[in-house]
Amino acid sequence: MASEQNQEKFRGLKSAWSFLKGFPGGIVNAVVSVAREAKKLGKDDSRRIVHSFKVGLAITIVSLFYYFDFLYDGFGVSAMWAVITVVVVFEFSVGATIGKGVNRGIATLVGGVLGVAVHCLASVTGKHAESIVLGLSVFLISTAATFIRFFPQLKARYDYGLLIFILTFCLISVSGYRDDEVIEMAHTRLSTVAIGSCATVLICIFICPVWAGEDLHNFTADNIETLGIFLEDFQGKYFETTNDKSEENEENQDSLDGYKVVLNSKGTEDSLINFAKWEPRHGKFKYRHPWDQYVKIGKSTRECAYKIDALNCYVISEMQAPVEIPRKIQEPCSTMSLECSQTLKELATVIKKMTRSSISDPHIKNAVIAAKSLKSMMQNGPWPETDLLNLIPAATVASLLIEIVSSTIKISDSVSQLASLSKFKTCNIPP
Amino acid sequence: MASEQNQEKFRGLKSAWSFLKGFPGGIVNAVVSVAREAKKLGKDDSRRIVHSFKVGLAITIVSLFYYFDFLYDGFGVSAMWAVITVVVVFEFSVGATIGKGVNRGIATLVGGVLGVAVHCLASVTGKHAESIVLGLSVFLISTAATFIRFFPQLKARYDYGLLIFILTFCLISVSGYRDDEVIEMAHTRLSTVAIGSCATVLICIFICPVWAGEDLHNFTADNIETLGIFLEDFQGKYFETTNDKSEENEENQDSLDGYKVVLNSKGTEDSLINFAKWEPRHGKFKYRHPWDQYVKIGKSTRECAYKIDALNCYVISEMQAPVEIPRKIQEPCSTMSLECSQTLKELATVIKKMTRSSISDPHIKNAVIAAKSLKSMMQNGPWPETDLLNLIPAATVASLLIEIVSSTIKISDSVSQLASLSKFKTCNIPP
Repeated sequence: MASEQNQEKFRGLKSAWSFLKGFPGGIVNAVVSVAREAKKLGKDDSRRIVHSFKVGLAITIVSLFYYFDFLYDGFGVSAMWAVITVVVVFEFSVGATIGKGVNRGIATLVGGVLGVAVHCLASVTGKHAESIVLGLSVFLISTAATFIRFFPQLKARYDYGLLIFILTFCLISVSGYRDDEVIEMAHTRLSTVAIGSCATVLICIFICPVWAGEDLHNFTADNIETLGIFLEDFQGKYFETTNDKSEENEENQDSLDGYKVVLNSKGTEDSLINFAKWEPRHGKFKYRHPWDQYVKIGKSTRECAYKIDALNCYVISEMQAPVEIPRKIQEPCSTMSLECSQTLKELATVIKKMTRSSISDPHIKNAVIAAKSLKSMMQNGPWPETDLLNLIPAATVASLLIEIVSSTIKISDSVSQLASLSKFKTCNIPP
Repeated sequence: MASEQNQEKFRGLKSAWSFLKGFPGGIVNAVVSVAREAKKLGKDDSRRIVHSFKVGLAITIVSLFYYFDFLYDGFGVSAMWAVITVVVVFEFSVGATIGKGVNRGIATLVGGVLGVAVHCLASVTGKHAESIVLGLSVFLISTAATFIRFFPQLKARYDYGLLIFILTFCLISVSGYRDDEVIEMAHTRLSTVAIGSCATVLICIFICPVWAGEDLHNFTADNIETLGIFLEDFQGKYFETTNDKSEENEENQDSLDGYKVVLNSKGTEDSLINFAKWEPRHGKFKYRHPWDQYVKIGKSTRECAYKIDALNCYVISEMQAPVEIPRKIQEPCSTMSLECSQTLKELATVIKKMTRSSISDPHIKNAVIAAKSLKSMMQNGPWPETDLLNLIPAATVASLLIEIVSSTIKISDSVSQLASLSKFKTCNIPP
């Protein structure tokens, strides 16, 4: 019994020792892996590092209000609102920062004015009724403003403003119960918020700015390019697979999965468009750039991606068509796939460079011709009478490719609309 | 000349008059349309109205700190932090509110402790170096914390916490330069934030709570049901269309477009899952409910929706198959479509009621049998030798339906996993 207890103690000590021995190693491992991830994050997009330094700089500059007497004397403790504003308003892109800054500024103004008005109204009613009038108005206005936040048109652009409106209104009107200097208070709060917002927006714009509009523009072009790359790879790999039945299928599959990011691109796109609308003209983007056109391009890109997802099934599907049938339709299918791929890649370049060629795209015409020739070829046989099952996957691939051609035309149309709306330059390439 | 001027004046007056005459009407119209939209918003989800009143109530309760002397004496002006916390933390669902409240509480604690520590360190160095030490530490810590916000694992759950950490740290450490009562300040801020967070969370949970987990659960079930409804309608309308070539095609199309919400469901799903993880056990959902399983179900549901989107092309596509060929494959296609529809609808019911039947689903078996019979039927002809073009759309529909059957099996598997992980009740229905 005693020896058993001893043994147990020994075991306990042993595990404690191994834990302690592992402890520094564990911490070192954790630190190393965090450092590795931080390095990767910075490498993937070095603007993240710059952004972090910009935030640090903005906060440090605004906190100077505390260190210098001649700055501090103006605002006193309220200077903290400037610091708070910087921390809360500074976002990654210029558009998001301006949006938040403008929302915060206007909401503070409106909330402050309404707060002062309610305070005046309440103080007229006498000390006894004052708290009731204040409480009731706070209840009613915050309830109404909270409900207004559900309106979808307002939610997208002014949600933060409505929040700050409720906040400022409550602070000013309720504080007025204890301190009659409400106008002074509202004024100080407004000016500190304005100083904080301005400092933030200026630093955000003038030190290595990150434009949401540019990100959106490149995001749209990249998505279209990704689909083009898929179609190119697919053309090679589908016919290769059906010819060789190679076992590298799975490896090939990995390189084909790139398009999947396009399927769920709507969220990113929506927020980028929302931010881009706040931005002033910059770089290649003029005032009133047709940002809404990117919604249309995004929609048709995703529609094409859904069809590509269906097509992708046939690369991994077990029911592969045997060799002889795909070969018959290989040529037009190959052509459709390649020409669509070329069209999409060129569209991506058109968007990226904001330059369109004066000659209308020949690739899309070739794709349409290939689709027509495929149809006529299928009408005029000859085809084996039975064994339709083996034909189905090939027929489906052909049919989906025909659908993809029409999707590509849709994308091309929406890109041309963007090109004419935002007046892309035209360059004349000799045919 | 004079008469022309007079005429112009008259025209100006006339347009001004018509503007003034239209003015009240315009306002009335605007008010009416806003009221109509508000009514619709409230009708669509009455919890929005309740939520607005809850927010109003919480703010009013917390602002009592200002009205009663015995409450006000404890915190003074700092009571405003409690009001601010309520306004900022109160979200629509319980999970989101708890998440923000916990983030805010812990971040205030950590930021406050670090702020006090830096203040002590700075005050040791002497008045001259103090501002430099403070400024440098504010710069470094806010830069580092801003960079940490980019880590994807932290961004999802702790982004708000990191923001509040920067905020509190800067406020406490910088305020310490002017006011040596930093510990008192940090303590007051922490307790007011704690009071605000607790009041918010309590009101959010105990008055008509909106559980993100329940919303996620129903959202998942609804999405699956939507796909089931599409397949049922498709079965009727595709063969109806190809038989009758009716011109009501466009009308039919509208009722088929319901599935499109599923295509872009990822964003809503992700945020609901994130919120649901913060929630305590409630209703049918136990502690440690397998929320991550909903990611899998959502993924396979969307995969099925992409295939349905490809299928939907053939309802609106111009290249409709002629009557005789679809009739041959009509029976197995109809069966696949209907049985998949039944399976999906039953899966939705299983999720909604959290009860599974002990008998494994017969519908999915029927669908698989129909797929097999379609394959063998196609192998054994007889089929017209030429005119393959007309066969293609029908073959594609058949082929996509076969893919949809395998997608349905995937959804069914992930739902069964959820059922076993969260121990759904089993009910024995006689066969």
